[in-house]
Amino acid sequence: MTQASIITIGDELLIGQVIDTNSAWMAQELNRSGIRVVRRVAVGDVWDEIWAALDEEQKQADIILITGGLGPTADDITKPLLCKYFDGSMIIDEAAKQNVLDIFTKLNRPIIERNLKQAEVPDVCTVLQNKRGTAPGMLFHKNEKVFISLPGVPHEMQGLMETEVIPFLLTQFRFPAIIHKTLLTAGVGESFLAELISNFETALPAHIKLAYLPNYGMVRLRLSATGLNADALESEIGQQFENLKSIVADHLVTDMDEPMQNVLGKLLTAKGKTVCTAESCTGGYIAHLLTSIPGSSAFFDGGVISYSYRAKEDLLRVDKSTLESVGAVSEEIVLQMARGALKNLGSGYVIAVSGIMGPGGGMPGKPAGTVWIAVGNNNKIQAHQLHFRFDRMRNIQLTAVNALNLLRKFILAEI
Amino acid sequence: MTQASIITIGDELLIGQVIDTNSAWMAQELNRSGIRVVRRVAVGDVWDEIWAALDEEQKQADIILITGGLGPTADDITKPLLCKYFDGSMIIDEAAKQNVLDIFTKLNRPIIERNLKQAEVPDVCTVLQNKRGTAPGMLFHKNEKVFISLPGVPHEMQGLMETEVIPFLLTQFRFPAIIHKTLLTAGVGESFLAELISNFETALPAHIKLAYLPNYGMVRLRLSATGLNADALESEIGQQFENLKSIVADHLVTDMDEPMQNVLGKLLTAKGKTVCTAESCTGGYIAHLLTSIPGSSAFFDGGVISYSYRAKEDLLRVDKSTLESVGAVSEEIVLQMARGALKNLGSGYVIAVSGIMGPGGGMPGKPAGTVWIAVGNNNKIQAHQLHFRFDRMRNIQLTAVNALNLLRKFILAEI
Repeated sequence: MTQASIITIGDELLIGQVIDTNSAWMAQELNRSGIRVVRRVAVGDVWDEIWAALDEEQKQADIILITGGLGPTADDITKPLLCKYFDGSMIIDEAAKQNVLDIFTKLNRPIIERNLKQAEVPDVCTVLQNKRGTAPGMLFHKNEKVFISLPGVPHEMQGLMETEVIPFLLTQFRFPAIIHKTLLTAGVGESFLAELISNFETALPAHIKLAYLPNYGMVRLRLSATGLNADALESEIGQQFENLKSIVADHLVTDMDEPMQNVLGKLLTAKGKTVCTAESCTGGYIAHLLTSIPGSSAFFDGGVISYSYRAKEDLLRVDKSTLESVGAVSEEIVLQMARGALKNLGSGYVIAVSGIMGPGGGMPGKPAGTVWIAVGNNNKIQAHQLHFRFDRMRNIQLTAVNALNLLRKFILAEI
Repeated sequence: MTQASIITIGDELLIGQVIDTNSAWMAQELNRSGIRVVRRVAVGDVWDEIWAALDEEQKQADIILITGGLGPTADDITKPLLCKYFDGSMIIDEAAKQNVLDIFTKLNRPIIERNLKQAEVPDVCTVLQNKRGTAPGMLFHKNEKVFISLPGVPHEMQGLMETEVIPFLLTQFRFPAIIHKTLLTAGVGESFLAELISNFETALPAHIKLAYLPNYGMVRLRLSATGLNADALESEIGQQFENLKSIVADHLVTDMDEPMQNVLGKLLTAKGKTVCTAESCTGGYIAHLLTSIPGSSAFFDGGVISYSYRAKEDLLRVDKSTLESVGAVSEEIVLQMARGALKNLGSGYVIAVSGIMGPGGGMPGKPAGTVWIAVGNNNKIQAHQLHFRFDRMRNIQLTAVNALNLLRKFILAEI
């Protein structure tokens, strides 16, 4: 089976200053096309270490994808290194040069010598034109292996992968089919699920693998099948997936590889209803998750982020004396926030949250991590108290996902 | 110099289903302690590939850190593999077993055999007790190298790194000092900066490196110095950093490694003023960035997310006839949103945005990526039109960061 390895280059990856999102995106695209990624390696902007990685990765992979280190600045040494590695000489690529000129004309910025150097490429490569930036991609052949160098800027790399790299690879190799099917469960832990599906798992054929992917208190289960006949494989994994779904039915959120907010968005769209939000401690994160979905205006009206007492009173009709007597993090207040948002925004459903995300702000009886969540509609609103014990960002994320899931369950219980 | 390599294990990393945030976090912690990370490798849940990675990484590194693959389910093969790799036999660790029992007692969940298996460890390892979960860390020695296996759940791995791994490594090795200093610029590109600081860069001594880290239309510049005398190094890099700051002064946002929202938060805190937000297209993301900072209630009052016309009218006092005549994505509306938020929330400053984040929603004269941003206070509000051309999520992020930066510049211009 054809195998790929991804090398990402940049000191910033090794001191942890940036998180590598490129590899995950590339791996996803390659997998979709039936190319198995066997390894991902990150190395710094260091000549010998990049060289060693090129030597090493071709032992295990047929296709070596390289990102990063192609910028116009002195710390970017990948291009001269590749030129030497593949015994080439640097030349100007006319199409790449024109591309640089076009970009600067469009931006109305003066062009400097350094920018034009972006059009230099080793004469032994096939140039992959980058329509989204100045650094072209480069394709090399050596020892019957394919090496492809791409810029590290995510949207430039993505454009080159879609328009040049994947189409090229599909003409060069015959790939087996790889099919993944993923479902999402909520409310039960990994060990519990493992017991529940242990017989199913044991009985799986060797070419179908099961993986557990815990995430924000939920667990995704993924079946992956590999084989030569795509149709037969599709039917076989489809059958196994149906079995798996029926075994975990009580805890199933969705049988697609999609986040909780998409499940809720689809449910609202199907009902022709909208939702609004009243957020205190999550500070807009629930609304952000909902509006990260293209077309979310169909099911989301808007919301209020009520950090201050005044915001709660003036924008959510929360009663000042209740605030003063029981405090903002309480069942009464989260219910008032929910009712106020429904009235002010005229939505079909509402999510309201009030809590303490930490690290500070805890008090006796209400430690950091305490949160009240209310979900409901004009007829009924339910309040739930939850406790989280992580860092601020994780508490915010867990609160948001749980709030979305509580509204999802509320709506399903109505039907 | 002592070098470390990080191996992350899990098929989900190679099909791109999850983004590896663990490696970045670990690299940051190791660097802070003077341990240089030379490579990061991700491999799947495949026996031979994990084995090969262990063989390979010890050639280049003195310390090999391994995360993932320690869960209680059948796809987690790391523990038996390590047991074999280091010629051990599996035994129950009594402290780890007590930890599992304690966790289940606290959660009030029934314990199953599979959970207790988490307390099994190879008899050739030193057990690192995991106070945040059931999978213990394991420390092995072989060929004068140190191998440390940690669970893949981020907050469990982080707890073990902080309380066990780093303190242990500091007793075993003598590390040179590594000092990083990072500043953030906005408003100019990487090539422009490279020209501006080219003389400075050329004159840097060999043990101080400069890196360019472009991010959301801003560029971070990082100086990294390595040496044996931490005090001398601190003084030397401090001097170079001051030079660099003065060269890029016109474009400098902050001389710390911190995001834009922290810079704005500090500025507001220093002035004793608060901000509120009125967000349409960013859907709460600006408020989320601001409230991701602990203690943000000191400078953030709250905001309105006005997706629907009704939300704009009822919560932000936007005029219905203006909405109907010029449309929501316009200078007039974003100014009205800003004024309405200031009035309703009583803040010192405001940020308002209205735009089209795509992929759909574009119209003649207002393509997807068009956005209006207003920033100001009760005396003056400025509106700016910007255009982005990326995917929805990136357009949202760029809009948010630019909006925060516009308010930062507005406040600085006042002084």
